[in-house]
Amino acid sequence: MTIRQLVLGGARSGKSRHALRLASALPAPHVFVATAQAYDAEMEERIARHRAERDAVWRTIEAPLDLVHAIGAAGAATLLVDCCTLWLSNTMLAGRDVEAAAGEMIDSLARSPANIVLVSNEVGTGIVPETPLGRRFRDEQGRLNQRLAECCDTVELVVAGLPLRLKG
Amino acid sequence: MTIRQLVLGGARSGKSRHALRLASALPAPHVFVATAQAYDAEMEERIARHRAERDAVWRTIEAPLDLVHAIGAAGAATLLVDCCTLWLSNTMLAGRDVEAAAGEMIDSLARSPANIVLVSNEVGTGIVPETPLGRRFRDEQGRLNQRLAECCDTVELVVAGLPLRLKG
Amino acid sequence: MTIRQLVLGGARSGKSRHALRLASALPAPHVFVATAQAYDAEMEERIARHRAERDAVWRTIEAPLDLVHAIGAAGAATLLVDCCTLWLSNTMLAGRDVEAAAGEMIDSLARSPANIVLVSNEVGTGIVPETPLGRRFRDEQGRLNQRLAECCDTVELVVAGLPLRLKG
Repeated sequence: MTIRQLVLGGARSGKSRHALRLASALPAPHVFVATAQAYDAEMEERIARHRAERDAVWRTIEAPLDLVHAIGAAGAATLLVDCCTLWLSNTMLAGRDVEAAAGEMIDSLARSPANIVLVSNEVGTGIVPETPLGRRFRDEQGRLNQRLAECCDTVELVVAGLPLRLKG
Repeated sequence: MTIRQLVLGGARSGKSRHALRLASALPAPHVFVATAQAYDAEMEERIARHRAERDAVWRTIEAPLDLVHAIGAAGAATLLVDCCTLWLSNTMLAGRDVEAAAGEMIDSLARSPANIVLVSNEVGTGIVPETPLGRRFRDEQGRLNQRLAECCDTVELVVAGLPLRLKG
Repeated sequence: MTIRQLVLGGARSGKSRHALRLASALPAPHVFVATAQAYDAEMEERIARHRAERDAVWRTIEAPLDLVHAIGAAGAATLLVDCCTLWLSNTMLAGRDVEAAAGEMIDSLARSPANIVLVSNEVGTGIVPETPLGRRFRDEQGRLNQRLAECCDTVELVVAGLPLRLKG
């Protein structure tokens, strides 16, 4: 039986570090599926910091858009996908059909023989975003998190570095 | 003894669906108290989607502002009020006294012989809103949620479709 | 053994009132360390409301920036610091080095012979802030909350006035 774990949390909640801990406890070889794309210095710095936190034992696959291929081709015992929020953002910015892309991504999770830990942001508990794009992103992220939670064995919400069990 | 249940959650957290499940398990006849007003196509689409998710057994009362009257007149064994956030927003936009209106609404909950499930948004965990109206809305919503939580038997926070028990 | 308690929550979540309850149950004399600065009428009204909620037994020290000094000089059996978010905001606006200031503040917590209850905001679960300053504030607050959570014995998240235990 392979394991599906979802780690939710706000920005700088410690969710990536917690997910890394969870995934590190699962069988090697480990693959880190990175969805981040460095558009600017702020992102580059963030990516570099996350990379420095990972052990050299982790192989990294960059998959800003094609998560399905990355999940299928990884050939690892354990995959850590960090994070679904950037993938969603990249998918929306690329003008793709988000519902369809999310469906394909979730199907690929079901097919994979690897243990998979997924990181995703909780973005829906501020006031209503000012822009239509902001509202649409918030809604798509909320729907995606519900779909991911449904197909995962465990779901945790990380607050201030502390995981709170929601499922499993 | 009638039941008062509060379901909190962010946007697209699955809170409406969870509240519908809770209310459907309570005695018939069921009345859905809808506070949504369709200002634009985005809202119309949202209302239609929620309506389609409800069974035909539900009678719908529209109450964008006059929740007190709707709660009093419903004549149902079980009421589902979805949601207190839109009611609050409508009340503020109509220029009414929010504290007084919330007090009257809460009194009407206490008087009703029906079981009542209430849905409300958690909106206070983003950064400080840019506009005075945004900050005021966030504060009023926070205060309203505290008052509702105080008079309800159970309170749950829904994250990614998964309920987390806060009270009861 | 002195106690370190962290109370997290969104705006108007009831976190200050909950923290006041926790701190009131700890030994006298009590000192309230206030980090709020009244820039405008909105803030003045907020400060006055919080102050009216406290018993006369509480002595208040104002420390918008110099938390280290306030924590060291308080000479109380129990300190309530409300809140770390305004302190962070004041520290950023004053152009100070946030990482260093947070480190010194956390060191002073470790050295203090008093019981300490800390209040801090959860601000990271809305969509990405529009401005670089907003994003930086959100990130610094997230990091600060993680550091505080690590050195506290108990951590609670308050939602709608209801505390949810995260640690301890």
